[in-house]
Amino acid sequence: MRLVRFGDRGAERPGLIDEQGTLRDLSRHVSALDGAALAPGSLAALAAIDPTSLPRVAKGTRLCKPIERIGKIVGIGPNYADSARLAGFRINPEPTLFLKAATSACGPTEAIEIPKLAARVDWGVELAVVIGRTSKYLSVEAAEQVIAGYCLANDITERNFQLQRGGQWTKGKSHDTFCPLGPWLVTPDELPNLDAIEVWLDVNGERQQTGSTSAMIFKIPYLVSYVSRFMRLEPGDVILTGTPAGVGLSYDPPRFLKPGDRVRLGASGLGEQDCLCVSA
Amino acid sequence: MRLVRFGDRGAERPGLIDEQGTLRDLSRHVSALDGAALAPGSLAALAAIDPTSLPRVAKGTRLCKPIERIGKIVGIGPNYADSARLAGFRINPEPTLFLKAATSACGPTEAIEIPKLAARVDWGVELAVVIGRTSKYLSVEAAEQVIAGYCLANDITERNFQLQRGGQWTKGKSHDTFCPLGPWLVTPDELPNLDAIEVWLDVNGERQQTGSTSAMIFKIPYLVSYVSRFMRLEPGDVILTGTPAGVGLSYDPPRFLKPGDRVRLGASGLGEQDCLCVSA
Repeated sequence: MRLVRFGDRGAERPGLIDEQGTLRDLSRHVSALDGAALAPGSLAALAAIDPTSLPRVAKGTRLCKPIERIGKIVGIGPNYADSARLAGFRINPEPTLFLKAATSACGPTEAIEIPKLAARVDWGVELAVVIGRTSKYLSVEAAEQVIAGYCLANDITERNFQLQRGGQWTKGKSHDTFCPLGPWLVTPDELPNLDAIEVWLDVNGERQQTGSTSAMIFKIPYLVSYVSRFMRLEPGDVILTGTPAGVGLSYDPPRFLKPGDRVRLGASGLGEQDCLCVSA
Repeated sequence: MRLVRFGDRGAERPGLIDEQGTLRDLSRHVSALDGAALAPGSLAALAAIDPTSLPRVAKGTRLCKPIERIGKIVGIGPNYADSARLAGFRINPEPTLFLKAATSACGPTEAIEIPKLAARVDWGVELAVVIGRTSKYLSVEAAEQVIAGYCLANDITERNFQLQRGGQWTKGKSHDTFCPLGPWLVTPDELPNLDAIEVWLDVNGERQQTGSTSAMIFKIPYLVSYVSRFMRLEPGDVILTGTPAGVGLSYDPPRFLKPGDRVRLGASGLGEQDCLCVSA
């Protein structure tokens, strides 16, 4: 099942994309695609609906971020060995965790804001895990059972704010629009091989990142289990899983986003994002 | 106005504490003390109610955290010069920001969980600012206008998780119950002098922290303005403002919390917390 939210800002509705690629309206069955809708029982009820019974939505309708009222966004530091090495980050024996403000989440075609005084805004295509059950101290074996689905994400960072403004990454990770999500949330049954997802990112039509989740240092069940040792996970929480080689910081000279730049990214089975950068 | 939430877990109601100290039920006037209830219009409507018209609530009723559906909890690094020096932290020319998972918030008498594998759980009495308006790029002058109120907070940290587990503070700051809030949210009209709030914290009856907000390096309007440069603030967001001297890490030998310890803390005008530590 590919779940989406669609429509104009302030009037978003839940929907799904059927096997023919047609967008259909789910709003008679669920009022919001929030944590409650992502719990196992609710997801099973949505999966039982015959998509052909749902109203079709006009082509070209705006898709928004696929999850509403996100509780928290947990980021994972360097998790692809090639990327970590190129960016000059030390690889830790255990994952580095950080939080992005939940207000940084936006949709897959929204404008990416370049903050005031920003000089080094960087990109990072990632696979995002969306949680479907309240959980804590999960074993690695139990971790997959709490995952409601996956979506494409761009973990955007202002590198000066992250690294040179007082010791924690928070300032560089949390600006509005610094976490485009979507276009859709895909349930685990449609993404059977998490180790073979190809991801890519272009800036102004030029390829910057190409990678495969096969190169992840820490795998997804381990990451979910690991995060749950430090904080309770709840339905609607998002865990980013790290980005492959090719972030702007890793080039010589480094490359960063400026107003007018266009960022496209995608992942196999997860769709594509297409965002224009604008001044905040 | 002193706003509270009271009642059994899962059945909490909004209330207020009147000038005689009597707890009264606000649930006929507002369904939840969440961000929407903290917006200026809603707060003004609550302030216009004659408290004597509200049902009294039985003495001894459990008080919960005073805000529901907290969007984010922003922490401020060393912000009292004495505390920073004693703990060996460098004082930055601008505030250090971090995020605590919103799921770390709990009430003023809830049990504080000592996480599995924790060895150095530390305390920190703080003044918390609660936001009442959506805001971004606030001037220092405008910052006070977006504050819905203040409450007492304990910024709990597992120091090993914070400092020795991979580079960011997140792991040490986000465990469930690591942010007791309340007992009440007091509106700004009842706390006219933010520079003269006395705070204290005891562990097992022994005084550990004593301080005054007069010693803050970065003052509250500046902090709110500063945070708003890096992320959008929304009604129901919480900003912690740093802790005075006397955290456990600063003692020689250092002192940390263990199951069975009792933590009491208070601040002038903000009430008291009384929490027992238990194993997670």
